[in-house]
Amino acid sequence: MNRKMIANTIGRLIILAGALMLVPLIVSVIYGEWKTMISFLITSAGAAAVGTLVVFLTRRHSREIYAKEGFVIAALSWIVMSAIGALPFVISGDIPSYVDAFFETVSGFTTTGASILRDVTSLTHGALFWRSFTHWIGGMGVLVLMMAIVPDNSGHSIFIMRAEMPGPVVDKIVPKVKNTAKILYLMYIVMTVAEVIFLLFGGLSPYESLIYSFGTAGTGGFGLRPDSLTGYTPYVQWVITVFMLLFGVNFNLYYLLTIRRFKSVFKSEELRVYFGIAAVSIVLVAINISGMYASFGETLRNSAFQVASIMTTTGYSSVDFNLWPTFSKVILVLLMFVGGCAGSTAGGLKVTRIILLFKGIKNEIKHMLHPRGVTTMRFENKPVDKEVKKGVNSYFAIYMLITAIIFLLLSIEKFDIETNLTATVACLNNIGPGLSMVGPYTGYYDYNIFSKLILSVAMLLGRLEIYPFILTVASIGHRTRE
Amino acid sequence: MNRKMIANTIGRLIILAGALMLVPLIVSVIYGEWKTMISFLITSAGAAAVGTLVVFLTRRHSREIYAKEGFVIAALSWIVMSAIGALPFVISGDIPSYVDAFFETVSGFTTTGASILRDVTSLTHGALFWRSFTHWIGGMGVLVLMMAIVPDNSGHSIFIMRAEMPGPVVDKIVPKVKNTAKILYLMYIVMTVAEVIFLLFGGLSPYESLIYSFGTAGTGGFGLRPDSLTGYTPYVQWVITVFMLLFGVNFNLYYLLTIRRFKSVFKSEELRVYFGIAAVSIVLVAINISGMYASFGETLRNSAFQVASIMTTTGYSSVDFNLWPTFSKVILVLLMFVGGCAGSTAGGLKVTRIILLFKGIKNEIKHMLHPRGVTTMRFENKPVDKEVKKGVNSYFAIYMLITAIIFLLLSIEKFDIETNLTATVACLNNIGPGLSMVGPYTGYYDYNIFSKLILSVAMLLGRLEIYPFILTVASIGHRTRE
Repeated sequence: MNRKMIANTIGRLIILAGALMLVPLIVSVIYGEWKTMISFLITSAGAAAVGTLVVFLTRRHSREIYAKEGFVIAALSWIVMSAIGALPFVISGDIPSYVDAFFETVSGFTTTGASILRDVTSLTHGALFWRSFTHWIGGMGVLVLMMAIVPDNSGHSIFIMRAEMPGPVVDKIVPKVKNTAKILYLMYIVMTVAEVIFLLFGGLSPYESLIYSFGTAGTGGFGLRPDSLTGYTPYVQWVITVFMLLFGVNFNLYYLLTIRRFKSVFKSEELRVYFGIAAVSIVLVAINISGMYASFGETLRNSAFQVASIMTTTGYSSVDFNLWPTFSKVILVLLMFVGGCAGSTAGGLKVTRIILLFKGIKNEIKHMLHPRGVTTMRFENKPVDKEVKKGVNSYFAIYMLITAIIFLLLSIEKFDIETNLTATVACLNNIGPGLSMVGPYTGYYDYNIFSKLILSVAMLLGRLEIYPFILTVASIGHRTRE
Repeated sequence: MNRKMIANTIGRLIILAGALMLVPLIVSVIYGEWKTMISFLITSAGAAAVGTLVVFLTRRHSREIYAKEGFVIAALSWIVMSAIGALPFVISGDIPSYVDAFFETVSGFTTTGASILRDVTSLTHGALFWRSFTHWIGGMGVLVLMMAIVPDNSGHSIFIMRAEMPGPVVDKIVPKVKNTAKILYLMYIVMTVAEVIFLLFGGLSPYESLIYSFGTAGTGGFGLRPDSLTGYTPYVQWVITVFMLLFGVNFNLYYLLTIRRFKSVFKSEELRVYFGIAAVSIVLVAINISGMYASFGETLRNSAFQVASIMTTTGYSSVDFNLWPTFSKVILVLLMFVGGCAGSTAGGLKVTRIILLFKGIKNEIKHMLHPRGVTTMRFENKPVDKEVKKGVNSYFAIYMLITAIIFLLLSIEKFDIETNLTATVACLNNIGPGLSMVGPYTGYYDYNIFSKLILSVAMLLGRLEIYPFILTVASIGHRTRE
């Protein structure tokens, strides 16, 4: 394994982490929060120093990297970013406990939105801005960001991209990885700015508009109030509903739109199934909760908001869905597993995988009925590669296994099964709120340190789709055995 | 599709169903329960008449059948058996509602042991005997029983056996299917008799001994008291613990024992993993519940009893595990998914499938670390067939999908999530008791007719491992389109 190259990349990332903190630093200055400002300044300067040292020490490295290195870089980067990102919260005193701050930062970068804060309103503007900004960075990926802005120093950086981007198949939009990363971030910025403008029109302050746009764009879910978006106007809620759904769409499709290949977009199987699942769920929930709200419009709005929020794994709420009837709650729990489209900022299993799992089942049944018939599987009008098919099946198995393990470990704490199960599912799929004690109006503050660390691991596993961490552990095990 | 042959087989099965009722009929006579006796007599005579007519009308049929027919026969047989088996309960007035009686009979044949009875002690001896006897028949399989006693009229009856026997790979023990079926039932009878003797030694009456041996042998769980085995002596509880574990073992291994191939038995990977999982679970639960019971012996006994009961999908209980701490309850819920060995009377995913899923994951990780390396998967010292590997993955996907669908449909009724989820898992895996409102000391009586039918379908899907029903529906769909 090319360890020098890995260290060098992590070093650059540490510098980037420090640089990114200059944004919330400016916010602190605007609001005159000097203590918070200083905490960002210290962390940023420290990161710049340490990062530069690491990069300097590893300056002579081979540029050859492969899939294995890509996975290890992804796993380490996310841990390092979260470890550094947590520091300002602790230094400024916004979140005194480091484990709590780490949980909150992991939750931010992984775009989960689960919080250990009892009272979010007690934090400084600068800290809250950083908290939401991590959503925005984590949504498209820290490594993709680095590839977009740092000179491309390897012919194999596609491996890093693959390790960080969600979905069973990841490929470059344009021939060069660096340009692909740039295009992705450009579209991401344009869409985020669009949402900010829509929210400003709704009467939100620039600060609020940015916070909620970051939360929506990254499909994260951090906000400014303990009851999420309940207190906002229907207009604001609808804007956020629409943008949540838009950020759950594969970004490749937006690129196809910009190059005017409308037909390809319209024909996308994943897109149709994604909106199909959302539409059916919205209707079913609306029927189930009708009578709970004053008008049909309010019922539909609440159904659409919650379905969009959970399916895209954002985690905002416009009502306390913990109080909904069981049927609607179960729909939301099942949507937690589905998630958004591959290649979007959303978490979950991804719609592509769900489609491929279904097609695999259909194929197996066909094969049983006609054992000698030739069965081919097609997706997006192309035959599905054998490796992809096998990969999706294995991923589903390991994903359910990890769910079971985390659920079991979390249950050492004696909360009820509904709380522990939905906390597991909500963190592993990067959603945020679960049900019962971790419902939309409450938080993860009652869990002990052990459980908080378990859930932090769950969030990281979910964001990077499990393998990078397992492969890193396996590589280390492999090395020590050598 | 060879429809005449299918009808002919079902006809024979109806006659067999009638014949089997002569056993509880005798019990009714012994206890002087004339009303119950008459209900068995009427059903038995009716079944004989209808069955003979069907067999006569379809006497000229081609003997050629294939996998498809095997699946359809299995699906229809189990529905027909349950539909007929429910009649005596209704006629005698033991269970007045037909849907309730159907649920109870499906639960019996599928060896689930879930009950809609509020007070099991109010039933007649004859009815309770029939209820438990269905466990015993369903455990090894109604079709396997028929093949053992009816002249072999097809060279392809292996397809029927495969459709009914649990596990990813089913093959004959000896060259002829008929002889395999005979050997299986012989071992089954010997082990059941052994348990009866052990229970008689424990001071149980012959009637009680038979009831609990039927429940254990089929890994069913029906008993005679509302608190299951709580009131019985430690000796009886230990005997049942040991026999539950024994009936969860692949019957092929017992055959190997009889032909003195001890080494093959000892080397069995599935057997080791099966007892390994059981042992680890017993230790973890015992640690977790220590302090709840008076002595170490009692703690261990309760832990071992519950773990054995749930893992083998029997469903008996010696305590109300609903009151256990969350960690132990979650272990039990996870064991519900695991189930017993393939080729045993137990339900669940089966240990073989769990092993193959794990090996598949390990293989995938190896492949990622060394993309060019050759990875082979071995199980029980043989390389795993590609089709089997694919089949296990597809089965896992469809199994989780069915779990999700049943959970959703059940949630239309507004019970809590823990109740509905564990009811789904407990019925689909043929266990019986779940948690919360369907815990070991309660029952399924509060569910409405719709939910009871859904759960009946779940039990049938679980016992026949899903495909027979889906293929039957697919075949019918296919036929009408032709």
